[in-house]
This record gives sequence, C-alpha cells and structure tokens, in this order.
Amino acid sequence: MLTLYGMADSGNCYKPRLLLARLNRPFRHVEVNALDGSTRRPDFLARNPNGQVPLLELDDGRTLRESNAILLYLAEGTPFLPADAFQRALVCQWLFFEQYSHEPYIAVRRALIRYPERAAEATPERLSSTLDRGHRALAVMESQLTTTRFIAGEDYTIADIALYPYTCDARSAGFEMERFPAIAAWLDRIASTPGHVAITWLPR
Amino acid sequence: MLTLYGMADSGNCYKPRLLLARLNRPFRHVEVNALDGSTRRPDFLARNPNGQVPLLELDDGRTLRESNAILLYLAEGTPFLPADAFQRALVCQWLFFEQYSHEPYIAVRRALIRYPERAAEATPERLSSTLDRGHRALAVMESQLTTTRFIAGEDYTIADIALYPYTCDARSAGFEMERFPAIAAWLDRIASTPGHVAITWLPR
Repeated sequence: MLTLYGMADSGNCYKPRLLLARLNRPFRHVEVNALDGSTRRPDFLARNPNGQVPLLELDDGRTLRESNAILLYLAEGTPFLPADAFQRALVCQWLFFEQYSHEPYIAVRRALIRYPERAAEATPERLSSTLDRGHRALAVMESQLTTTRFIAGEDYTIADIALYPYTCDARSAGFEMERFPAIAAWLDRIASTPGHVAITWLPR
Repeated sequence: MLTLYGMADSGNCYKPRLLLARLNRPFRHVEVNALDGSTRRPDFLARNPNGQVPLLELDDGRTLRESNAILLYLAEGTPFLPADAFQRALVCQWLFFEQYSHEPYIAVRRALIRYPERAAEATPERLSSTLDRGHRALAVMESQLTTTRFIAGEDYTIADIALYPYTCDARSAGFEMERFPAIAAWLDRIASTPGHVAITWLPR
C-alpha cells in the first residue's frame, strides 16, 4: 500500500490526499509536523534530503517528493491527466504556475499570518508583497476561468487539484476574493464534484 | 516552425534553447526584455497573461508557458524524458525542486546583484536569506550527485537541463561553489556533452 507522509494542516499535503480519494485508492497516512522541526530530523532527512512534506513511499520503499510530481505520478493513465500531448503540457504549465507564482505568495501569506512559528517573518513588507503577488496570481486564474470550466480546459485535472487548496482558503489569508467571481464559481464546481473530500485544516 | 519568446540573459529562457539544440530542432527566437516592462505590455500579455518568458508558440498559434512545462512538452518521446513511470516522476520531482527551492534563491540572488532594475529589492535581509536557502538547495543537489551521475539518475534528462543554467552561474551570485565538488563534476559533465551549447549571458 502507498504511504503518504504529510501534515494535516497543509495544502500541499492535501493535494495527493484529494487525488487518492478521487481515485478511490487506499493509502496509509503518516503525520509529520513540518513546523516543529520533524522534517529536519535525521530519520526524515534520510527519506527526503529536501526536508519537506508531502513524501510518497511506494511498497518497495522507493520515495517521491514534491506534491505536484506526486500528482503527476499518481494521475498517469487516469482521467486526471490527459493523454493528448498539448493538453498534458497545459496541465504541467499550471502545476508550475502553482508552485512558482501562486503558492509562494498565497500559501506563504496564509502561513505568516496563521503560524506563531512564522510570525518573525511577517514583516509589513513581506505581507504587502505577498498580497500584491498573490492578487496577481489570482487575476491570471480569473482570466483563464472566464473562458474554461477548469483551469487547464473543460475537464477536471490535477492542475485543479494543485490550485484548489490554497485558493479555497485565500480569503483567510487576506485576499480579496470578491474580485474573482470566476474563481468562486470554480471553487464551488470542485467542491460539488462527486467524491470530493474537503481539506481538514486544523483549528487555530 | 516553433517560435520561442525569450530573453537572452535568462537561465529560464536558456533551458528550452539548450534542449532544442540537443534535439537538433530548428526554432525562431524572438527577444523579449523581461526587465524593461515588455512582458507587461498588452501585446505580450495577450499571448501570456502571466507576463513571463520563456513562451513557446506552435505553428498553429497555440502557446505554452513555464520553462519546465515547455521542457516536458518538447522532451516527450526523446531520451531526455524517460519512458518508465517512476523515472519520469523523479525527473518531474527535480523540475519542481528547481522552480520552488532553487531558482527563487539562486537565480533571484543573481538578479538582485546583477540588474540595476532590481537593486531596490536587494536588502541585506533578502541577500542573506537567498544565500542561505540557495546553499541549502545546492546541498540537496550535492547529496544526490554523490550517488548518481546526473540529477535524476544515471542518464542526462531535462531535469539536468533545468538545474544547469543558474547552478553554472551561481558563483557570480556569491554562492560558495567550492563546498560542492560533486556539483562541479556534474557541471563539467554537462558542458562536455557533445552538442552542448553554452548560455550566452549578456555582458554587464
């Protein structure tokens, strides 16, 4: 059985959980706290030298890291990753957009506000720049979602799974979501898909 | 023929140029300056709402953005992207590592030092944090390259192409490359591959 090392209160860790739920594929979850230093301890670093979760472990002990690489691996051969070469490329385009232009601003701003462990980094400049760049990422998504039902086209793919977690909680990080009606409709579309499982953010 | 919109002095734009050279595949290059506001002008934003280069345009006018998504698209069916599912996943893992844990520190520190347009952002805190996180990324690469010839295994893949440009110029950005002998050997290995083309950083 697959083993997923992850932190319950993480959108990056929720992504493979959501895909595995949609695929109806069983897995074992091992909770690893990325905030208390657990991912920097020797036993975890032996599994993942980059010290991050999520981490996927296969039956034979091989491991795979990076949430979106895990999504690509698990989605191969399923409807969540198109077979057409250009459609696949568009899915990948949005996976890289998520990690480079979205997560470092929207997820990071959320973490700066939410976790006492990150409070020292939450300078006015940092809060301002993440707000500005996050709004810019949301505007790019809004522009796409005014023309297609899902982010990479008409079908629900792992690109939607990658962008969903931190977008659905962006309001709590101070982003003005009322400016993005197409995103709001897309969030509803995803949450109402049969088989959807909600993220279990921990109470704070 | 493929058209590649890019900036000569950019490692992200060099990646597809290097792959296309290795594939012996002709393309048309259109220079777009990402520093003078050209990528924020309406004509460019119509092609790429995210306002970034590189951008790949196909014969039929369809466009693809994100350097590593372009690499995945162009490498499909070539030796630069393995056919085996887990090996492919490892290549993707390193592509996401590059965009999330490497480029935002090593390439960004280089840009902060190199471009007068970015000087205002080059605060002591920013220079210190990018140095620390960049060294951490290099240590992860070093650990891998002490066990395999290339970053995703024994073969040269697009994961090497993605990590090469900013790693080969990291010394100029202040990174202590003498700490990473396995990376130095890997850089030599790539540069001495038949068909390699060097990046043409512009003189500054």
